[in-house]
Amino acid sequence: MSILLLIFVFVVWSHNVRNSMANGVTLESLRLSLIRQEDTIIFGLIERARFPTNSPTYNESYVSTPTFSGTLVHFVVKETEALQAKAGRYANPEEHPFFPDNLPPSVVPPYNFTEVLYPPAASININKDIWDMYFKKLLQLFVAPGDDGNYASTAASDLVCLQVKVHALSRRIHYGKLVAEVIFRESPGEYEPAIRAKDRDALMKLLTFESVEEEVKRRVAKKAMVFGQEVTLNNDDNKGKYKVDP
Amino acid sequence: MSILLLIFVFVVWSHNVRNSMANGVTLESLRLSLIRQEDTIIFGLIERARFPTNSPTYNESYVSTPTFSGTLVHFVVKETEALQAKAGRYANPEEHPFFPDNLPPSVVPPYNFTEVLYPPAASININKDIWDMYFKKLLQLFVAPGDDGNYASTAASDLVCLQVKVHALSRRIHYGKLVAEVIFRESPGEYEPAIRAKDRDALMKLLTFESVEEEVKRRVAKKAMVFGQEVTLNNDDNKGKYKVDP
Repeated sequence: MSILLLIFVFVVWSHNVRNSMANGVTLESLRLSLIRQEDTIIFGLIERARFPTNSPTYNESYVSTPTFSGTLVHFVVKETEALQAKAGRYANPEEHPFFPDNLPPSVVPPYNFTEVLYPPAASININKDIWDMYFKKLLQLFVAPGDDGNYASTAASDLVCLQVKVHALSRRIHYGKLVAEVIFRESPGEYEPAIRAKDRDALMKLLTFESVEEEVKRRVAKKAMVFGQEVTLNNDDNKGKYKVDP
Repeated sequence: MSILLLIFVFVVWSHNVRNSMANGVTLESLRLSLIRQEDTIIFGLIERARFPTNSPTYNESYVSTPTFSGTLVHFVVKETEALQAKAGRYANPEEHPFFPDNLPPSVVPPYNFTEVLYPPAASININKDIWDMYFKKLLQLFVAPGDDGNYASTAASDLVCLQVKVHALSRRIHYGKLVAEVIFRESPGEYEPAIRAKDRDALMKLLTFESVEEEVKRRVAKKAMVFGQEVTLNNDDNKGKYKVDP
């Protein structure tokens, strides 16, 4: 299976937005920001691919400390989140930690982030699904087998990939209901039968646009090729060589 | 001044290596790895450029904790290094922390990293220069003015940029003397007069190759353009638009 399909899972939801303005948020600017986040996801994956699998990073018996039991990547993510919480990262409603329990308080003054969205949307947390999907499915598709001993750096690269995905998805979740609402208001008659029938599939079909999704897929594949290429002064030497399989 | 010149400072030293083998290290493989690190540096800078200046990140009066006095970026770098030390990062002789004092011990079993180099080379630490150069000169050249409140994420992005630069430079410092030794052995007669006269400039001139340095400059500029472009399905719209000034 191509890596594209999985990157696609992360980014495709993020589109299908139409130009509109609600609560001061321009949907066009949101769309541009989501497109920019595709680059960040692809850079993150290419950077993780610098290291081989490094399986001890994911092996519970590898870490030996009386105060912690779990894998090295669990340790690094949990501890990094704790210190970033002190630095105020989770004051931004778009940031969602993987290990939200017992996070230390921030040591910086509060910043007035705008919370655009409905509280039910803000309470959605699918980080566990992202975590499982990344480690159980995505990782083995783009890293080479092997062990170079750089387990801490490997875990730090995994964290970057996970954080940017959470951020991208969290934006989508945050804005999702708003976007659906805007689309609904444009032509309520089209949606009412499906809403009354609680027909999720029909609603999803009405709310998404296949041509936009196709465009996202093609753009992400192109980005993976552009950013993953070996750039040399004479590029003809490297045609078709990429750091990750687009 | 173009950002290229400063990226160049980071990467140009890293080249001028000839094919050779010493202590089991292939200089060609080192050269390829250094070229790959150019990508990592450029990705890092592009990612930092997602955020504006965010000046409170660098303002000592912003952090308020009785146990720490300094800027937020100092806090994030120091604390991240402490937890990565626990995760074993600094067992690799190519990794050099910015705040090496009082690092906690590793909680993972030791990995047998090969230390290829002379102890005097290993003891060189120019992290302070890298730190100053990054914050005092480089940063303002590629980030937009402004404040979006994401100071913790900004500091985390700065850390990624700093770590990869240290890693790239540290490889160069580690291998530097070895490379000079190999070049010297190829034609000792050429170097002896300058060595006896302790003429640093003449030695540097003999050990570097202007054509290689020119090639590195041109390649880094090209990479900054390729990785920094706005990739769309119809690229003609975006000719000449880049995320950082190449």
